[in-house]
Amino acid sequence: MNPATSKMDYKTKLASLFENELLPALNDFSSKQKRFPLYEPISYMMSLGGKRLRPLMVLAAADAYSASSKAAIPAAMAVEVFHNFTLMHDDIMDEAPLRRGKTTVHEKWNANSAILSGDAMLVQAYECLTLCSAEVLPKLLPIFNQTALEVCEGQQLDMDFEQRSQVELPEYIEMIRLKTSVLLAAALKMGALIGGAKEDEAQHLYRFGESMGIAFQLQDDFLDAFGDPEKFGKQVGGDIISDKKTYLWIRCMEKASEADLKTVDTWIGERNKGEEKVSFFKALFAKLEVDSEIQNTMESYYQDAMTHLNRANLKDEAQQFFSAFARSLMVREN
Amino acid sequence: MNPATSKMDYKTKLASLFENELLPALNDFSSKQKRFPLYEPISYMMSLGGKRLRPLMVLAAADAYSASSKAAIPAAMAVEVFHNFTLMHDDIMDEAPLRRGKTTVHEKWNANSAILSGDAMLVQAYECLTLCSAEVLPKLLPIFNQTALEVCEGQQLDMDFEQRSQVELPEYIEMIRLKTSVLLAAALKMGALIGGAKEDEAQHLYRFGESMGIAFQLQDDFLDAFGDPEKFGKQVGGDIISDKKTYLWIRCMEKASEADLKTVDTWIGERNKGEEKVSFFKALFAKLEVDSEIQNTMESYYQDAMTHLNRANLKDEAQQFFSAFARSLMVREN
Repeated sequence: MNPATSKMDYKTKLASLFENELLPALNDFSSKQKRFPLYEPISYMMSLGGKRLRPLMVLAAADAYSASSKAAIPAAMAVEVFHNFTLMHDDIMDEAPLRRGKTTVHEKWNANSAILSGDAMLVQAYECLTLCSAEVLPKLLPIFNQTALEVCEGQQLDMDFEQRSQVELPEYIEMIRLKTSVLLAAALKMGALIGGAKEDEAQHLYRFGESMGIAFQLQDDFLDAFGDPEKFGKQVGGDIISDKKTYLWIRCMEKASEADLKTVDTWIGERNKGEEKVSFFKALFAKLEVDSEIQNTMESYYQDAMTHLNRANLKDEAQQFFSAFARSLMVREN
Repeated sequence: MNPATSKMDYKTKLASLFENELLPALNDFSSKQKRFPLYEPISYMMSLGGKRLRPLMVLAAADAYSASSKAAIPAAMAVEVFHNFTLMHDDIMDEAPLRRGKTTVHEKWNANSAILSGDAMLVQAYECLTLCSAEVLPKLLPIFNQTALEVCEGQQLDMDFEQRSQVELPEYIEMIRLKTSVLLAAALKMGALIGGAKEDEAQHLYRFGESMGIAFQLQDDFLDAFGDPEKFGKQVGGDIISDKKTYLWIRCMEKASEADLKTVDTWIGERNKGEEKVSFFKALFAKLEVDSEIQNTMESYYQDAMTHLNRANLKDEAQQFFSAFARSLMVREN
């Protein structure tokens, strides 16, 4: 198959799922919100956009097994509403002023509103899920419950790491698995089950999503330091400036010499000399070869994802779609 | 029937449901919590106790229709875990230092922990509910979802009222209905449905709980001002000192003369002369007869509750149980 065609197909497919199924459901969700202060932050949050990858994966996975994604719309909405709930509460905890370039809910209203509207949003995610057919709902609920708890566990680890001076690599991988991967994985598995996949097929799609999610987050870590400032979209080096314990940071600390660590110590906590700090760490990452190491690790998660994709018993077209989608996440520059 | 026997029966029944069914389920819930920082505040919150009225009502309602409450244990736990989740988040929003005489979660840990563990707790409430039989789950989920949203709406109204100088009585009643009544009502309805009640029978039990919940909250308002300090348990006049817009306050403002309102104005915001402030308002409430008015309103909600109880098609024994239970809520002194 021509890779160009494949990439075209995957983008057309995603665009079609978005336009024809997800967008009407998103509009319906917003139009049904009660006119009551509790619900205004919810409509606002949901209107901020984003790539909507998770709900699209629910739809694409259902479509892959049943050649129709209509039945998966409630689950897709549940996943997207849940994701936005986590963002609303994470933003309070991280004291983030902006989300997708717009004022965060706790800044635009206040922390109490963001807490309470977020709570309502989590309930609404379950309300969406409840609209799935009674046949598949008992299979979906335990996945959704477990995933939701895991995402909370991931956020807890992320907050805990900020208070610690050292984090081990396996802990870090577990944190990003919980915080980022499991929801993507669950989205795929739920879609597959709605589409009529067998339990083991759905589980392979879960593992595909889980490994892709980790690879995706590692790519994020890499691009934060080594991305092209013209294409990255965010400030390059943001993680470095805020001393975030990413893959690069953790491995750098493990591999650095005593002498390097002494210089590193002078940079920790430094917020003003941003450009100089970023240059210093980028040079150190390169010297210690953690830049190539993260790319190798990423590649190995990507290969693991492909192994599971190949075992998910998909028809050629669906196989190519997910394969092209996964490739696009790996070669991105933002 | 001898009222003394009836009261004895109702207390024995509640104690038996608690000892034999709810307590083992509560212990099981705690023992299954993962040893992970996210879950410690959950175990702590659940261990603070309380009357456990809501889960006991789930069990009693199931028992009333099917002569067994075993099948209702997951729903009872869902209701209790949900209730404790709302307390954990409400305490952050209200900046409460104490809950049931113990340090609140956001004080013992921090606000972020209370937000995140509360979120996990809401998910765990759904996890409990998911353990209900697949036959009844599709009926329970929409009730639970709607109730959860209504409780959030009630908390939102409560917070909004604090920022306002005036609140109308119907708005206040709606706020306490949402914040207090609907969960008790839903507990009864869910239990009834699990027990095999018909939809309209379950709905009458819902309305019984809804009116009882409002009567219960009005009783709270009354006891705050006119309760016996020896028996009330909390500081008498706490609502008055904090200028809380209760039934008594709202009707007092509506009925007060221009001259009274001028004196009232001098007391609003006064936090130091507590005893004097409480005496002043108690005298004014009595002069304007809002004390007897609230008792009449309470009695009318109680009568409405009884009407619905009588239509719920219960066997004599169950009818007497709920009737004695309702009476006990009305004649309480704390």
